[in-house]
Amino acid sequence: MKLTDQSAGLSDVPGFLLSGVGCDIRQKGDLNRLDMALCISKTPCTAAGVFTTNEVFAAPVRLCREILDTKNPLHGFVANSGNANACTGKQGLQNARKMSELACAAAGLEKNSLFVASTGRIGRQLPMGNIEKGIADAAKNLGNSQSHGNAAANAILTSDTHQKTVTVSFETQAGKTVTLAGMAKGAGMIEPHMATMLCFIATDAVIEQSLLQAMLKRCADRSFNCISVDGDMSTNDSVVVLANGHSGEKIEKDSPDATQFENALYAVCDNLAEKIVGDGEKISKIVEVKVGGARDNAAAEKIARAIGNSLLVKSSWAGEDPNWGRLADAAGYARAGLDQDKLDIDYDNVPVLRGGCPVDENLSQWKQIVKKRRFSILVNLNVGAGEFRLLSTDLTEAYVTFNKSE
Amino acid sequence: MKLTDQSAGLSDVPGFLLSGVGCDIRQKGDLNRLDMALCISKTPCTAAGVFTTNEVFAAPVRLCREILDTKNPLHGFVANSGNANACTGKQGLQNARKMSELACAAAGLEKNSLFVASTGRIGRQLPMGNIEKGIADAAKNLGNSQSHGNAAANAILTSDTHQKTVTVSFETQAGKTVTLAGMAKGAGMIEPHMATMLCFIATDAVIEQSLLQAMLKRCADRSFNCISVDGDMSTNDSVVVLANGHSGEKIEKDSPDATQFENALYAVCDNLAEKIVGDGEKISKIVEVKVGGARDNAAAEKIARAIGNSLLVKSSWAGEDPNWGRLADAAGYARAGLDQDKLDIDYDNVPVLRGGCPVDENLSQWKQIVKKRRFSILVNLNVGAGEFRLLSTDLTEAYVTFNKSE
Repeated sequence: MKLTDQSAGLSDVPGFLLSGVGCDIRQKGDLNRLDMALCISKTPCTAAGVFTTNEVFAAPVRLCREILDTKNPLHGFVANSGNANACTGKQGLQNARKMSELACAAAGLEKNSLFVASTGRIGRQLPMGNIEKGIADAAKNLGNSQSHGNAAANAILTSDTHQKTVTVSFETQAGKTVTLAGMAKGAGMIEPHMATMLCFIATDAVIEQSLLQAMLKRCADRSFNCISVDGDMSTNDSVVVLANGHSGEKIEKDSPDATQFENALYAVCDNLAEKIVGDGEKISKIVEVKVGGARDNAAAEKIARAIGNSLLVKSSWAGEDPNWGRLADAAGYARAGLDQDKLDIDYDNVPVLRGGCPVDENLSQWKQIVKKRRFSILVNLNVGAGEFRLLSTDLTEAYVTFNKSE
Repeated sequence: MKLTDQSAGLSDVPGFLLSGVGCDIRQKGDLNRLDMALCISKTPCTAAGVFTTNEVFAAPVRLCREILDTKNPLHGFVANSGNANACTGKQGLQNARKMSELACAAAGLEKNSLFVASTGRIGRQLPMGNIEKGIADAAKNLGNSQSHGNAAANAILTSDTHQKTVTVSFETQAGKTVTLAGMAKGAGMIEPHMATMLCFIATDAVIEQSLLQAMLKRCADRSFNCISVDGDMSTNDSVVVLANGHSGEKIEKDSPDATQFENALYAVCDNLAEKIVGDGEKISKIVEVKVGGARDNAAAEKIARAIGNSLLVKSSWAGEDPNWGRLADAAGYARAGLDQDKLDIDYDNVPVLRGGCPVDENLSQWKQIVKKRRFSILVNLNVGAGEFRLLSTDLTEAYVTFNKSE
């Protein structure tokens, strides 16, 4: 398996055309900011998707679910940034449908051939004039060069500071190459429970829908669903995969190629999830919270999320303070079956707490570890075999300043 | 019922002696900072208590539960600030017992006659030399003047900016006066689910233990358990009530006096809970989050807590930004049975969202409301009769700065 960390994204996959253009969806008179992405495969694709489990979900999420349920072949997606089309009622759903129709028509495709995604401010209707113009421009600018891939990857960003793309390829048993590539956006409102804000993955493999959907679900659970920047699950989280079959390589269930394909898909998801955390709004630290020895995996997850979302813990990380007392406190209020007299905590591999008591002689080592940009915390409950790993961030003053207004 | 908001606290209740002294528990060479409180009733008291439900709980919490279980009459409490005696293992429990013994002996009482409480940094052993000296001084300084009450109320504070005390009295059917008074500390690590950090209530009523315990549980559920500063439930939360019977007035179950007494007890709890929120660490706003029309009360509570603990929501409050989209997002990820097409939201009494769609013409009014120091948010799900009220705060850059180190 070959992984290219700084790739142009989806244009690396044979048979996909991309574009990203600016149509001033924020209505600030700025056409230079890319905000409309289009991705088209001339050949039909098998598609899979996982979406936010938020009960307040955006109109495009509703539409994507409908489109997936039809099991029709898909040909790509259209996505805008700058406006989430969430909390917009019936008008919002009509606008999402209109956006889909406009894009299908512009690309010479049948109705409902494209996924639709939006990201940005909640509660405002899409500026449909700008959307229409953007889609027309995007359809005219489709191509498969790296600059096309980069433009699409940039057009979906909001408060991200840089594009998030990755390309993975592997050789099948038959000696041919299968390619997967992904692009994502993240930054704020990040605690996906089913997917992250927006992530699009393309591959040239041939694969059945049910197998692709099962693999995506497993990979998303182990990647996007294990990260948190601020504990706020979005209304628009969507991860979709499109497989256009261009390579001619069929991924059969339970075959060695299926294992390779799923590993490659996981590599794409994991890489993008890590990039989303690393570019979280105004963060200064990435902290891996590993909980082991819990009653079960669900209990481990509860504790990891309590730690990774605690304001006091996150503030102490920003301050490079090895304040394990706040970690223990958060682990306890998760109320997931913890016996404090059995609790072990490590920073990286240095013991902090053993059987509920501090190993104070290691204090100078803890202080060094928490100064790093990235470090691990291991919490072992020593009561069972449940485990969970959450990738989290610190909380800085700049995050609050940034989010005081939008 | 008469409520004195700025009282001297427990010294207002006949028959209780108070003191607060400094013994440098933080070991910074500062004896001027009061950090040891003692409260003694010469006559035995009926006692009730509610404590943190955190699975990581401090040694004094364990000891208080043991003492309550004995059903022995109590004579008061000893409490220190500057050190929480939490995550301190067997040594911590021994120290809590020793603290209790020293205080009982100094006050000429039998063993286990006093509650013990600690608050402050987690994970350090109590400096027992300082504790011993502090208890001896406190026992020598007992008195019932306002300055004694104020000293005790100040000795339990940590990052609080001022003392939190209240006194309530009422006239019984027999025409006599019953007095209740309380003192509390709060500021950080505040999302009690059973009680708040530390709160001590005294009364001169005559009342049975089981009745007092039931009333305290109900009052705490409606006051301390409905506030959140940072969503972090502490290891040391304790609310205790001591009734020394000094007034000679017996509070009989289901009597008019019982109703009056419970109302007075609730007034004490509610007043102190509000003071804790109002003095939350570096807050600039108090926001009342009222959720109604939910499937049941538990669903309403889940949604209120999701909103009141959302980093994005709390940051927007600090920025005086009427960002109702983040409120709706948080309400949705609580996943408590919300239909977004039925969702209504108001700021104070001004409609923001009706049936899931924004009432944009009210924007200028929303902007005025969120500028206030205190305002309300009403979220109506319109699917049932469940309701919950949470008193929350904004999140400021100064909170992060303050909590980067301790």
